[in-house]
Amino acid sequence: MSEAPRDDEAGTARPDAEPDTAELQERVTELQDQVTELQDRWRRALADLDNLRKRVSRDAARVREEERARAATEWLPVLDNLERALEHAGTDPSSIAEGLRAIHEQALDVLARLGYPRRDDTGTKFDPARHEAVGVLSQEDTPDGTVLHVVQPAYGDGERQLRPALVVVSKAE
Amino acid sequence: MSEAPRDDEAGTARPDAEPDTAELQERVTELQDQVTELQDRWRRALADLDNLRKRVSRDAARVREEERARAATEWLPVLDNLERALEHAGTDPSSIAEGLRAIHEQALDVLARLGYPRRDDTGTKFDPARHEAVGVLSQEDTPDGTVLHVVQPAYGDGERQLRPALVVVSKAE
Repeated sequence: MSEAPRDDEAGTARPDAEPDTAELQERVTELQDQVTELQDRWRRALADLDNLRKRVSRDAARVREEERARAATEWLPVLDNLERALEHAGTDPSSIAEGLRAIHEQALDVLARLGYPRRDDTGTKFDPARHEAVGVLSQEDTPDGTVLHVVQPAYGDGERQLRPALVVVSKAE
Repeated sequence: MSEAPRDDEAGTARPDAEPDTAELQERVTELQDQVTELQDRWRRALADLDNLRKRVSRDAARVREEERARAATEWLPVLDNLERALEHAGTDPSSIAEGLRAIHEQALDVLARLGYPRRDDTGTKFDPARHEAVGVLSQEDTPDGTVLHVVQPAYGDGERQLRPALVVVSKAE
């Protein structure tokens, strides 16, 4: 930092010298102090900004990891039930279908809780944002572009759609 | 940045004089400009900091959402296979066990890809950070505190462990 010139002491010694000099000199000193302080504040704000930027990328990785773990943990009961069903597969084959159905329900429930419920699009109007046509069928008494059959269901909706549904659509003869 | 006082130029013109009013006035104006500019920079840095802070919380929500969708999407083939296995359950009951086994393998594979492989702790030394003892058995020729049997497996390891394994541990008579 530059220091204020020390001419003010000389000014006090000669009272008849230019009247404003001492005042101006004082003003210069004041302003220089202000400059020093503002430089300090500005630099601290820049340092805070830099630290925050660094933290942002670290935090993003942590948030990602947390969310992945949270979502994966939801699936563990499904895994446990798959293992249990497999253990019983040898001793009680008739119960497997029942177990499979329960596991499927459980898996649908996990996806719904995560925000992606299974969607049934049968009978809705074809919408390229939500459907992918894999077949066309002509069917009487059905308006053009109606979803006749869902080959593979969609999960979630709108901005939370994991994938579009694969569908067969109606077409006039 | 602060500039060096300009007294040297004046000094050249009037070698013995102290800075006169005009010079000091000039210096005051210079410093005032500098203060104005530094205030401006400082305020802009603070505004940037504020904007970044706001963005951080928005971004965290977005990152979370993205990661949840990415992780959930990994499970869709498992869901599809569960549906397929259920469709065939009526017509070909004998194939269900095989289908179930394949689905279980697929689910383990998804968890492993997300970073949480199934862990087999049988035979390892009991570790309270990784194991939760649900039973104790005395067994000859086995050191104290050995995992004899895993009742419920752990997924992931270290900081990426989704849950500890439930285990039965050996105990000396």
